[in-house]
Amino acid sequence: MREVYVIGVGMTPFGKHPERSLRDLGREACLAALRDAGLGPAGIEGGYCGNALGPALQGETGIGQSVLWEVGVRGVPVVNVENACASGSTALHEGFKAVAGGFSDTALVVGVEKSVMPKGTMLNVGAAELEVQLGDVFPGTFALMAQQHMARYGTTREQIARVAVKNSAHGALNPYAQRRKALTLPEVLGSPMIADPLTLYSCCPNSDGAAAVVLATGERARRAGARAIRVAGSALTTGTYDARRDLTFWPSEIAAARQAYAQAGLGPGDVGVVEVHDAFTICEIVHCESLGLCAAGAGGRLIEEGATALGGRVPVNPSGGLLARGHPVGASGVAQAVEIAWQLRGQAGDRQVQGARVGLAQIMGGSQQGDARACTVHILVRD
Amino acid sequence: MREVYVIGVGMTPFGKHPERSLRDLGREACLAALRDAGLGPAGIEGGYCGNALGPALQGETGIGQSVLWEVGVRGVPVVNVENACASGSTALHEGFKAVAGGFSDTALVVGVEKSVMPKGTMLNVGAAELEVQLGDVFPGTFALMAQQHMARYGTTREQIARVAVKNSAHGALNPYAQRRKALTLPEVLGSPMIADPLTLYSCCPNSDGAAAVVLATGERARRAGARAIRVAGSALTTGTYDARRDLTFWPSEIAAARQAYAQAGLGPGDVGVVEVHDAFTICEIVHCESLGLCAAGAGGRLIEEGATALGGRVPVNPSGGLLARGHPVGASGVAQAVEIAWQLRGQAGDRQVQGARVGLAQIMGGSQQGDARACTVHILVRD
Repeated sequence: MREVYVIGVGMTPFGKHPERSLRDLGREACLAALRDAGLGPAGIEGGYCGNALGPALQGETGIGQSVLWEVGVRGVPVVNVENACASGSTALHEGFKAVAGGFSDTALVVGVEKSVMPKGTMLNVGAAELEVQLGDVFPGTFALMAQQHMARYGTTREQIARVAVKNSAHGALNPYAQRRKALTLPEVLGSPMIADPLTLYSCCPNSDGAAAVVLATGERARRAGARAIRVAGSALTTGTYDARRDLTFWPSEIAAARQAYAQAGLGPGDVGVVEVHDAFTICEIVHCESLGLCAAGAGGRLIEEGATALGGRVPVNPSGGLLARGHPVGASGVAQAVEIAWQLRGQAGDRQVQGARVGLAQIMGGSQQGDARACTVHILVRD
Repeated sequence: MREVYVIGVGMTPFGKHPERSLRDLGREACLAALRDAGLGPAGIEGGYCGNALGPALQGETGIGQSVLWEVGVRGVPVVNVENACASGSTALHEGFKAVAGGFSDTALVVGVEKSVMPKGTMLNVGAAELEVQLGDVFPGTFALMAQQHMARYGTTREQIARVAVKNSAHGALNPYAQRRKALTLPEVLGSPMIADPLTLYSCCPNSDGAAAVVLATGERARRAGARAIRVAGSALTTGTYDARRDLTFWPSEIAAARQAYAQAGLGPGDVGVVEVHDAFTICEIVHCESLGLCAAGAGGRLIEEGATALGGRVPVNPSGGLLARGHPVGASGVAQAVEIAWQLRGQAGDRQVQGARVGLAQIMGGSQQGDARACTVHILVRD
């Protein structure tokens, strides 16, 4: 298996882009990533596109082909990948396999989504599930997770809300973020209740945007010089619908983390910067535990102590995460890799994490019943 | 790169299954393929699902995870793939890469679709394209292709219609086919005109159904014994929107065929049985030319001489093809591989092609402007 490197990254600002098409957003991110890699479109040997909602919301299929055509990539294999919120990271995983497995020397991975919808409408992820039809939609599911975490571990509403406070502060420093306002604890706790204990600012927004990454073999990376970041681990797991008594973690995430750490030959103690799937505040607390940044049940204290804030022991979501950067569903997984690459290269501006050489990105997707449906963990290393 | 084998295949009958869900159809195909492979679900190390219309028509995402959960596969990577009509074959291509590249020793590839819609509604593939909005929908595009083929090469309406006559005769022998009635030339020519020269019976139906294939390494295949079929070539290419003066072929198909033949170390003369993307009659004629079964422009004569009928030199679409077996969009690419495997093993019943050791499957997908958007060619070999 060959080593795989990130040699170029790019993204659009996340936010509301009603006037822009999927291919327009995707093109901007791809061109930025190619420019960053110092490659022209003719240098790309394969394309992977993560998108979750285009067929349903925009009536588009073959979005990867549309975007790559706009960018000038011709002829090479292009695969559109859908794994709900993990669509972008799954595209990254497939691109990784294409380069690692010897099928392409380079690959352009793009995640793109337009998920801003008219007020009052809802994303139909999991719409075919009986539980969803009965009302068990995302905020409700994650509220249950929060309630059980509070009951079992003594996690407090304030600790949970601090995730939004921290990530909004990070997002205020990120020119690519949708929410640029640092929120106070009273503002988060006092925003409208969605599903107890999750308030409005405890939930990520719907967003439009795109992110792209150029992957390459070691030889191609050497030509790109010091900016190349090695993909040391890339794991994708699947959860089940099996009934679980313990809602305070996802078995699929524990498994993905274990696989990615083993692949990289690294452990949680080596990680200096992290991006996780904070679609709701409670999620970040659970992810910190499952990724081994703290013990099970200790995620509330971890955030309260400031360990995961910029300047802390292991900054989590320096980009602002989904809560502040925004969540264009199929793009988020790629945007995480873009942020980690910027951080490891020392290019993250006001939100720079000092001295990190190992970064980790985690995201999951799919219907919320039982375990998460798809979970990815990527580990990136500056050698 | 490791050798990859098909060790199990299965499919549902194609047709109208209004009472069945995507996961129900997918499960039937997967369980049949696992049974055929002599494997339990715990023996599967990766899953790839081809589906094109589920998010738009059924409001479902993560369909591969749903299907594999129903089958009992747990934990392993599952990727949902969308490349329009080539969704299933692209899932096969990604599964091939996972096994060939050393990421999984086995993979379950499933294609599943429910595309039967109320009368008067239309598939929205390409709906975001300006040309489609202006009325350049599939039947029109392929009618233009037929008109230019007739003008340039002297291909006749009768030759084109003979594709439907042949494939309906094949479909009448296939218990999995949606259309089981052998049509006469007058019936095809006399059916309602859709887009001159394409009549109703020149167009494939909308269909529901699923097909599945179990892939494995050589070592696993040896355990499966004589029924294993080697995947000697797997190519995926991408076309463009570039304006073309010559509508009588797809450059992306020429490229995919060349790549797959080179990978297999074989040529058109070695191929004994073929499944191609006959969504419209004219397509099969064009595909026969581009795959090298005859010279450019000679596809009309090839069908007229009976060379591509059962008993002919190189039977094409012994299953009945999309025209008769039906076209559940995301499933068709996998169903082609199932048919080729059955043919090479001598298990194709009344439609058995005698003595074939090399089979080829071709399908393409995506918006119809310019070149095809995605094209796959797979070559299967009984060693």
